[in-house]
Amino acid sequence: MFKKEKLNETALIKEIEKLSAETLKFNKSLIVKSIGDDCAVIDDKNRILVSSDSITENVHFNLDLYNFYEIGKKSLLVNLSDIAAMGGVPKFFVLSLFIPGYISQTDINQTLRGIIDSAKKYRVSLIGGNISKSSEFSISITIMGDFEDEKVINRYNSRTDNPVYVSGELGNSWMVFYLGSKKKTILEKKIRFKDKKLIENFIEKYKLPMPRINLGRKLSEKKLANSLTDISDGLSKDVFNILGKGCGCEIEIEDIPINEELREIAGILNIENYMDAAVSFGEDYELLWTADEEYGEKELQKLSKETGAGIKIKKIGYITNKPATVNFLKNGSPYTRKDFTFRHL
Amino acid sequence: MFKKEKLNETALIKEIEKLSAETLKFNKSLIVKSIGDDCAVIDDKNRILVSSDSITENVHFNLDLYNFYEIGKKSLLVNLSDIAAMGGVPKFFVLSLFIPGYISQTDINQTLRGIIDSAKKYRVSLIGGNISKSSEFSISITIMGDFEDEKVINRYNSRTDNPVYVSGELGNSWMVFYLGSKKKTILEKKIRFKDKKLIENFIEKYKLPMPRINLGRKLSEKKLANSLTDISDGLSKDVFNILGKGCGCEIEIEDIPINEELREIAGILNIENYMDAAVSFGEDYELLWTADEEYGEKELQKLSKETGAGIKIKKIGYITNKPATVNFLKNGSPYTRKDFTFRHL
Repeated sequence: MFKKEKLNETALIKEIEKLSAETLKFNKSLIVKSIGDDCAVIDDKNRILVSSDSITENVHFNLDLYNFYEIGKKSLLVNLSDIAAMGGVPKFFVLSLFIPGYISQTDINQTLRGIIDSAKKYRVSLIGGNISKSSEFSISITIMGDFEDEKVINRYNSRTDNPVYVSGELGNSWMVFYLGSKKKTILEKKIRFKDKKLIENFIEKYKLPMPRINLGRKLSEKKLANSLTDISDGLSKDVFNILGKGCGCEIEIEDIPINEELREIAGILNIENYMDAAVSFGEDYELLWTADEEYGEKELQKLSKETGAGIKIKKIGYITNKPATVNFLKNGSPYTRKDFTFRHL
Repeated sequence: MFKKEKLNETALIKEIEKLSAETLKFNKSLIVKSIGDDCAVIDDKNRILVSSDSITENVHFNLDLYNFYEIGKKSLLVNLSDIAAMGGVPKFFVLSLFIPGYISQTDINQTLRGIIDSAKKYRVSLIGGNISKSSEFSISITIMGDFEDEKVINRYNSRTDNPVYVSGELGNSWMVFYLGSKKKTILEKKIRFKDKKLIENFIEKYKLPMPRINLGRKLSEKKLANSLTDISDGLSKDVFNILGKGCGCEIEIEDIPINEELREIAGILNIENYMDAAVSFGEDYELLWTADEEYGEKELQKLSKETGAGIKIKKIGYITNKPATVNFLKNGSPYTRKDFTFRHL
């Protein structure tokens, strides 16, 4: 299956079919039929995870900050994060492209290359999709994964006194967005060459999310989490997704992992409320979970090491018995966040 | 899983979750988890069919001809047709909505009602999706179905001398499009009240496709087809999808099933080349298949009856040994179609 639209459709579908072949080897035994019939056919006897997410120009990306290769990558990475958030293994995906007239063949090819390169990195197979004309560039992906029985980790499952953990650092995605949207103003300012370089490097380094597939798998395999989600809407909102029935949560703001370069850039640009932004903005795609009990230092280091990339893991708070109440503390005292109501772009 | 965007997102997701509950009973034993976590979880031990299709305003529909309820219906129906085209049973779907600012809450609710009503009719369950802001109204659906082993019917599998069959009538979708796009001009013309009524009734009756799920199932169960697809791009293009290796096809144009009212309307409006249009336009979503040998009259009637709706089934040609060559005949003599290069809207 790959549905035609009146673009340069036949050539484009051929190109996608060719590119998809680069990804079929990863799950060969599970794919009975890929692109080329009315449906793809998969033969996976495990339970299957299904999720979808879309990215749209001027909502989730703009062409000033991201090139087409990166947009392609991002479209798949945000979907992979949902599989990570269940502790699953990503396997297949289906691609819907909405292509406006001003997008060239080269732009599309670069987008596809980004998608396929991400697919190869995470060993997921492109098995179908469709192309549609539109007035705006969008990519919608449905991702499918699997897991062995009883190993998926749900949301809403924590209990009072459970520690709350987060992976990586929060706020990097917000800072990239902030720097990207003010790039012109910032680079016109009289700041040192060294600082400009710092800013540019930061953008390059953190503009794309890193779905935490390996970490999700480890948490699942070792039963180290009782509630798990990913941070897509911001910690302050997503934290509600790990609260068990009748539970609330306390988060120590000083324990939230913040990138050192982010702090430095915030200093240079006199951004005071970067902590509030980091907590509110979202799109970090880090994992957020609770555990039955606090990990020992050794266990924590082992887990971090086993994820392959030495991902930081930080305890940032604990579950309370105050129903649906999330309190932020600063050095143990109540802390009121400045209300950031961000709109993605 | 249902991803948020900054619309009236929380309320909308709640509404969708509520509506999805109306569809979960159909496949209860297969759905471990639906909307509400990072992924849906399904537990279907059969092989799984996956397909996706999108409809976009001003490409696949316009708001003059379709109301939001019908757009919702259409978005699911075109996806169901892909499952029919494999002889499968539709089971689950995932919904991506792209919502522009000018679409009201009522519009969205009507769209959702259309989707859910179609889902209930065909007993498919809404298990997840996402919402995204956009500048144009689009609906992208990934549909999943299943089938018992060895019962799926692929494309490209016919052999020389196999008869070619088609269900229903071709061209109705084209006529609706034609009438819709010229509605103003037509209704200003001095045509009789009776003819206007005929036109209006025709549009109402044929504006939405009828996915041939039952027919596909019967063809599959009874092994009555060796090659099967649905007509989405037009017979003249889709027929290539049923050709086996080294095969071509001859189609007798007089045998193509055409609606009597379509002929009448073509007469009233002096449309001469309606046959060519019916063959070229597509969007009929009828099934097109080949069989090992010609059905007997009795078998044909039985098959038609068993589909539940007495769907017409017509032999329109046969497979030849001329590689990748499709010839149209008119009363047995070579026929050159006028070249209709339709663009959907």
